[in-house]
Amino acid sequence: MNALGVVSRRLCAGVAGRVSGWSAHSLRPFAGITVSQIDEEVAKLLELKAQLGGDEGKHQFTLKTAKGTRDYNPKQMAIREKVFNTIIGCFKRHGAETIDTPVFELKETLTGKYGEDSKLIYDLKDQGGELLSLRYDLTVPFARYLAMNKISNIKRYHIAKVYRRDNPAMTRGRYREFYQCDFDIAGQYDPMIPDAECLKIVHEILSELELGDFRIKVNDRRILDGMFAVCGVPDDKFRTICSTVDKLDKMSWEDVRSEMVKEKGLSEEAADQIGQYVSMQGGKDLAERLLQDAKMSQSKQACAGLTDMKLLFSYLELFQVTDKVVFDLSLARGLDYYTGVIYEAILTQNGPAPEAGEKGEEGVSVGSVAGGGRYDGLVGMFDPKGRKVPCVGVSIGIERVFSILEQKAEAEVMYKKNPKLLSQLQHCEDSGIPLVAILGEQELKDGVVKLRDVHSREEADVLRAELVEEIKKRIADV
Amino acid sequence: MNALGVVSRRLCAGVAGRVSGWSAHSLRPFAGITVSQIDEEVAKLLELKAQLGGDEGKHQFTLKTAKGTRDYNPKQMAIREKVFNTIIGCFKRHGAETIDTPVFELKETLTGKYGEDSKLIYDLKDQGGELLSLRYDLTVPFARYLAMNKISNIKRYHIAKVYRRDNPAMTRGRYREFYQCDFDIAGQYDPMIPDAECLKIVHEILSELELGDFRIKVNDRRILDGMFAVCGVPDDKFRTICSTVDKLDKMSWEDVRSEMVKEKGLSEEAADQIGQYVSMQGGKDLAERLLQDAKMSQSKQACAGLTDMKLLFSYLELFQVTDKVVFDLSLARGLDYYTGVIYEAILTQNGPAPEAGEKGEEGVSVGSVAGGGRYDGLVGMFDPKGRKVPCVGVSIGIERVFSILEQKAEAEVMYKKNPKLLSQLQHCEDSGIPLVAILGEQELKDGVVKLRDVHSREEADVLRAELVEEIKKRIADV
Repeated sequence: MNALGVVSRRLCAGVAGRVSGWSAHSLRPFAGITVSQIDEEVAKLLELKAQLGGDEGKHQFTLKTAKGTRDYNPKQMAIREKVFNTIIGCFKRHGAETIDTPVFELKETLTGKYGEDSKLIYDLKDQGGELLSLRYDLTVPFARYLAMNKISNIKRYHIAKVYRRDNPAMTRGRYREFYQCDFDIAGQYDPMIPDAECLKIVHEILSELELGDFRIKVNDRRILDGMFAVCGVPDDKFRTICSTVDKLDKMSWEDVRSEMVKEKGLSEEAADQIGQYVSMQGGKDLAERLLQDAKMSQSKQACAGLTDMKLLFSYLELFQVTDKVVFDLSLARGLDYYTGVIYEAILTQNGPAPEAGEKGEEGVSVGSVAGGGRYDGLVGMFDPKGRKVPCVGVSIGIERVFSILEQKAEAEVMYKKNPKLLSQLQHCEDSGIPLVAILGEQELKDGVVKLRDVHSREEADVLRAELVEEIKKRIADV
Repeated sequence: MNALGVVSRRLCAGVAGRVSGWSAHSLRPFAGITVSQIDEEVAKLLELKAQLGGDEGKHQFTLKTAKGTRDYNPKQMAIREKVFNTIIGCFKRHGAETIDTPVFELKETLTGKYGEDSKLIYDLKDQGGELLSLRYDLTVPFARYLAMNKISNIKRYHIAKVYRRDNPAMTRGRYREFYQCDFDIAGQYDPMIPDAECLKIVHEILSELELGDFRIKVNDRRILDGMFAVCGVPDDKFRTICSTVDKLDKMSWEDVRSEMVKEKGLSEEAADQIGQYVSMQGGKDLAERLLQDAKMSQSKQACAGLTDMKLLFSYLELFQVTDKVVFDLSLARGLDYYTGVIYEAILTQNGPAPEAGEKGEEGVSVGSVAGGGRYDGLVGMFDPKGRKVPCVGVSIGIERVFSILEQKAEAEVMYKKNPKLLSQLQHCEDSGIPLVAILGEQELKDGVVKLRDVHSREEADVLRAELVEEIKKRIADV
């Protein structure tokens, strides 16, 4: 009998589980078949495949990175290093230490943590071992780390890439692989103090990075849930309605209302009542008003959230960061695990934004650059005894920051100079040359030399006679 | 007939390839079996597995990182940062700039680049988009980057994690996710100069990291292939025999010979002839001797490799690093893409290693900590026009370095002190406290105070009367 027959015979004699040509849906479990036997067979088949050389001699090759990912060239790495140093400096000033976790987790670790966003998770192929998925954020790994190591108090930062099978809009800095810079405080403390510290950190970092004006919207899961309750949303629709409200930063109210009613089966009355609230923005005053609101005050949960919101604003006043913070009832945040305060920072492009409380027209938003909130139940989901560790944190999405800084750098230089001079100036910036002396036609006529400070990009005309002295002076300052 | 019988019957009728209980080594490809048929079978097995509930209805949650991966706690992060700074400092001194690439590539990018190691690649699940795999090293992404950006000259370093579905021996620092620090020189230069620079860099880094004694073995693909040819190895067995020779660092010659003859079908004569050569080690002198060797000199390829080996050693003499470098004919390196010089650095644990050329007993090896070589054909595999860019590089495998430094730190402190004092000293090290004053029973008797320099761990007894002055002096130095 040939080798083919021998193999077939062994299979028939072997334990059931070898499969060919039947529909998985009609299968009933065979007595004796186990998952590990399947794993074993899969591993053997894959080894055979590797022996055959994998790709059946496909000759055409595509020279590209995977969709939604990119390389960083040396110039981009330099920008990245600067940005990280600024951010890490701020985290360290606030007393945080750092950790690192693997790029993939057991699939079950990530299961059930991200609500409707779960479909964006990258899974690894089942190659006969554990089922794995690429991390979707740094928060769930952090909670797993806390539970594994039985840690009850820590202030940690973590800078690493995360993975989401999103539809990337890469010109606006949205990728499938992107960096997050997370700062989190785990442990029991006086209410709202760590929460306020996270907001202070966002404010510091965004200010230091000089990206222009920004706004930090804050809200609270308890206020949202309370609002849904008093507006007549059924309990089992809270999370899904929340997901839809979250789209208000990208869609109009009409479209959001339509999704709530037509796709999620919400009554029109409930939708309209929600509509009343989600247009509200303000500060401590808004929280005060809502505590007096006839409908809202019926919800104990909402009142707890509103009371804490007032407390939060008191601390923000002490931290002197209220200028950029707005209590905004339309902020929802897609992730399931938030239990208290939630926030999101956006950059605004045109001029100064309106005062908190005014419903002015904000500058065009380039999307969120930071987000976070309180998540008191997550560690308990991992702890074998369900032991809870309250946590609050913020995540800075720096790809947008990189995009902006890269564009800024190019635009400034492009706008002012002719191409030849441009590449010379670029060379100076790349090589760290501090001063440039420029002699153009105008300078020759005026008997001056234009001195350009490469770092600050400021230029000044200097008389030829005074040139040497001026350069000596500036070099001494460098 | 029951369902079990139906399945078995279908299998017997189906195409061969269902495997059970046979050794992969004895498999000969079945006529008609294709990779896509294997894919189909695997997919069905996995669907069956999913039907069984994947984990067979396990409700218990496993609190762990994936097999072969680990978290880094803050202390480990501190060690890691120090090591990276040392390595990056060396790379920068040699004029390298840095890049970064995505954690996964198109599967086709990695296909056909790793020979028999291809089975260790992590694939991502086919979720309806591009087929992706986690990067296996940083070299193939580098070649892809060069081809994509049409770069013909660059000196770059890249520090990032890579992924291999290996069988981890984690106490010895072998993981499935681990850092590599790569330094590569791409471009046309005078022969052996960039190759020598890479060896100089390995020597510098391993010396600076103070890991004890090390050896760098060098060989050349052309010498290996030439040796195989003159020993009677058939051309089509070169790569697979090379893979087996590569196991000499882990297996005895008897076992390696056995694999070559019994599993790879090599003649005993050829195996014995190979055995003569692979026991040879030396320096420039060995290269000279082999150029005179009756058999070896018949191969033009081998002669080219040997001539370059002599040239390499001349440069290494100029760089003053020959003390640790050995030309070793048993070094093979598993990867397919090397075309010229290859090298591997190992740490030796016991005392000074024998002089190059002596067949002394080396200290117990803890495994390789660095490896690399010349790979002139890789970029051409990516370039649409097949345009070649010669490359040479080295990869430092720092997980072993981390392991060693972590153990060293713990062992030193454990060995000398009692536990209570130990944790106080540990606290000082963690917090950056520079000096410790120790008053034990002996010190009290002698009227002295033991001053310990936390950083250097040196201790000195100081008379009480002189204590304040001594501390002032030392603090001024800190």
